[in-house]
Amino acid sequence: SYMIWCRNVVFAKIGEDWIFLLLLGVSMALLSFAMDFTIAKCQKAHYWLYMELSQYPLLQYLAWVMFPVIFISFSAGFTHIVSANAIGSGIPEMKTILRGVVLKEYLSFRTLVAKIVGLITALGSGLPLGKEGPFVHIASMVAQLLSKLVTSFRGIYENESRNSEMLAAACAVGVSCNFAAPIGGVLFSIEVTSTYFAVRNYWRGFFSAVCGAFIFRLLAVWNREEETITALFKTQFRVDYPFDVQELLAFAVIGIVCGFGGALFVYFHRQVVYFNRKHRRLTYFLQKNRFIYPAIIAFICSSLTFPLGLGQYMAGELTQKEAINELFDNHTWTKGQADVDEELIISHWKHPQSNIFVTLVIFIVMNFWMSAMAVTLPVPAGVFIPVFVLGAAFGRLVGESMAAWFPLGVRSDGIPHRIIPGGYAVAGAAALSGAVTHTVSTSVIVFELTGQIAHILPVLIAVLVANVISQWLQPSIYDSIIQIKR
Amino acid sequence: SYMIWCRNVVFAKIGEDWIFLLLLGVSMALLSFAMDFTIAKCQKAHYWLYMELSQYPLLQYLAWVMFPVIFISFSAGFTHIVSANAIGSGIPEMKTILRGVVLKEYLSFRTLVAKIVGLITALGSGLPLGKEGPFVHIASMVAQLLSKLVTSFRGIYENESRNSEMLAAACAVGVSCNFAAPIGGVLFSIEVTSTYFAVRNYWRGFFSAVCGAFIFRLLAVWNREEETITALFKTQFRVDYPFDVQELLAFAVIGIVCGFGGALFVYFHRQVVYFNRKHRRLTYFLQKNRFIYPAIIAFICSSLTFPLGLGQYMAGELTQKEAINELFDNHTWTKGQADVDEELIISHWKHPQSNIFVTLVIFIVMNFWMSAMAVTLPVPAGVFIPVFVLGAAFGRLVGESMAAWFPLGVRSDGIPHRIIPGGYAVAGAAALSGAVTHTVSTSVIVFELTGQIAHILPVLIAVLVANVISQWLQPSIYDSIIQIKR
Repeated sequence: SYMIWCRNVVFAKIGEDWIFLLLLGVSMALLSFAMDFTIAKCQKAHYWLYMELSQYPLLQYLAWVMFPVIFISFSAGFTHIVSANAIGSGIPEMKTILRGVVLKEYLSFRTLVAKIVGLITALGSGLPLGKEGPFVHIASMVAQLLSKLVTSFRGIYENESRNSEMLAAACAVGVSCNFAAPIGGVLFSIEVTSTYFAVRNYWRGFFSAVCGAFIFRLLAVWNREEETITALFKTQFRVDYPFDVQELLAFAVIGIVCGFGGALFVYFHRQVVYFNRKHRRLTYFLQKNRFIYPAIIAFICSSLTFPLGLGQYMAGELTQKEAINELFDNHTWTKGQADVDEELIISHWKHPQSNIFVTLVIFIVMNFWMSAMAVTLPVPAGVFIPVFVLGAAFGRLVGESMAAWFPLGVRSDGIPHRIIPGGYAVAGAAALSGAVTHTVSTSVIVFELTGQIAHILPVLIAVLVANVISQWLQPSIYDSIIQIKR
Repeated sequence: SYMIWCRNVVFAKIGEDWIFLLLLGVSMALLSFAMDFTIAKCQKAHYWLYMELSQYPLLQYLAWVMFPVIFISFSAGFTHIVSANAIGSGIPEMKTILRGVVLKEYLSFRTLVAKIVGLITALGSGLPLGKEGPFVHIASMVAQLLSKLVTSFRGIYENESRNSEMLAAACAVGVSCNFAAPIGGVLFSIEVTSTYFAVRNYWRGFFSAVCGAFIFRLLAVWNREEETITALFKTQFRVDYPFDVQELLAFAVIGIVCGFGGALFVYFHRQVVYFNRKHRRLTYFLQKNRFIYPAIIAFICSSLTFPLGLGQYMAGELTQKEAINELFDNHTWTKGQADVDEELIISHWKHPQSNIFVTLVIFIVMNFWMSAMAVTLPVPAGVFIPVFVLGAAFGRLVGESMAAWFPLGVRSDGIPHRIIPGGYAVAGAAALSGAVTHTVSTSVIVFELTGQIAHILPVLIAVLVANVISQWLQPSIYDSIIQIKR
């Protein structure tokens, strides 16, 4: 009878475990979809306002600039009042928690509310901020609350090891629901949060992540955005001859530059924080007037991206999602003949007084420091997506240069195979985000994001090279933040 | 000065580490390519012999049957004489070693020679045997030897923890070079060998695996087999609408059946071993006459696959590689109109007196028990590829049935999207191999193998469902082998 009792308990626990993981995945998918929806609406409203006032350039400028300033200020204020724990990415703190440090109140309901509202308003502002890190934090809080809400789960996660198992799965779900990338999500969360990883947690995270990604994409089908379940940033690169072996050298160069660039980003971000902290008067002033710093940064950034001003030379009117979609575009922008769809994309990146190379360079340089500044704001915001966009832009730059240099492809004999600049953009995005976060699983994330894996070797080479260089020069952005907070 | 000395030592070690991982990847790639080449030549010789004698059916039969009997007998004899440690897969033993158990002589040079020669002859015979497990073992031995050969490496891997780091990387390289699947290789090797995994080993395995996969595929380009670096079993499925959401149910059914099928395979394999062991006289007889058992099994299997006999109803003349390529085919076999290439593929699976459904069922049933028997032979051989082929055949069966049932696709409204049976074959292959080995990373392996990731959700669902069921019913094949050996 003791045996039977034991078996019953074990079975009941396994059953509960499954249900819990399923619930976690589904609820995070719903949350992710709802948040994406709201954020997109905010960004549309911003653009709509700008377009409506097209007869009054000054009003246009005011609308373009005040919208982010108000949103960011609200986000900063709300987060400060409700829970200051919601500030920032959340991955560094989750890393600390998973190592056994108890951060009080970090996973409370109050923090959850602050993080969700703060994140929606921060991203709705249109500043170069990300959703990935905060989503890992949100998933962990949802997991914690789910286990508390449903009484019968309480038993499972009472002891510490099970609690950390649950949080590890939650981190995976967080990344996965964000990108609809279950495999990459699991791996990325392992890389950024764990030192030693229990392999039995692996399928738990996997299961939950698949549930999450499935529901997340299914919602898009139900919402008539997509015909069927597909990748988030689906690409249509040629697969019969995706790249030539000689092109791998150019991909290695992307890796090298992204490695140095990633290290520079981490260094620059830390210097911004240290600068603010070093000047005592400045610190005092900023602490007294909490809205000043976010408002100033939002003002500067949105002034610079104003589409009638400098913005026209740096694709300023594009949201991050639009920018990624266009940078991953299948066509070669310098090719000459372009159809209507293509022309529309190119028009964002080409200016009568300039060309796409100049635009891309300005885009990269401006967004580089703006992203690093924006991430230091006291709002819930991640660093992954801004860096991802930067990397994509750099990759596109290299790809377009290659395409201009070798119009018929690099092969001297046989059938010419043109270069695909979009493939370079994918590799660049993976390499720079990998360099900043010290992960190689960004490569898997881009395969899942684009729905294509033909560029696997170029991407892996770029990511590995970038990682080697940035790991040698700087800590990861998350370790850097831990270092700053200490 | 102490600091400088320290730094020098650390730097020197990091440098050596890199070089070691690079060398390991490259040498395993060369080995894998050379072995594939030799095995393919053996299999071609077998088929050539069969075709040359086409006027004398009896001689044809003799040639078709004696060839494998001789090869398998040689393999069994050679392995027995040189090193009995080379028998079997190698993954169970590597799992044991990585948990800290010392298996004497298991990684010696003698075992390496026995494993390589034994594996080439065993696979050259054409029996349903795999190369993955043995390759993990071979990679570990090569790593061990590399570290001994190059004097300066000796320092690095003297202590135990570094030694196990090296072996973990080697396991990853072994899988990766086999399938040209670096990411899947790393994950698969983690899943089958580790309980707790040190995340810092992850990039080591990754780096080495990427080097290996790169060189492995580059050799194919240099050898004029491929135009550029591509996937090993490249598929060309439609990506704009790879599957309908409703089709996911069919994929879940594949997962359920593969889960039960995988558990049955593990159970059946164990029963075969126990049967041989239980009958004392049989055991004694077999030990005395070591060639009898392998020769009998080889004789039975090749008699059954004889293309003029039963083989014509079960695609008996195809090698495993050919079978995978054809099962992953893009076309629907029941469609009616077929071009020349298609007709050739279908001709292997269709018989005037039968249809493709019957052929597939016979193929699955016969190969199921033949694979389980073949794996018990005392030769170096793995279980992954035979099971992979079985799963692919089952998936193709479900896919073709679906295509016959819904000729215009499952959607009732809008544009009809036909069903892609090849996608089902890919999911089936991943699900069954995942069920037998208790891994979810088989999903990643199939994406890398086929070069397409559009079917990510169906594959993940099938693999997860299959894993849940088979983990509930049976241990993994590797744990089962450990259990048998105890």
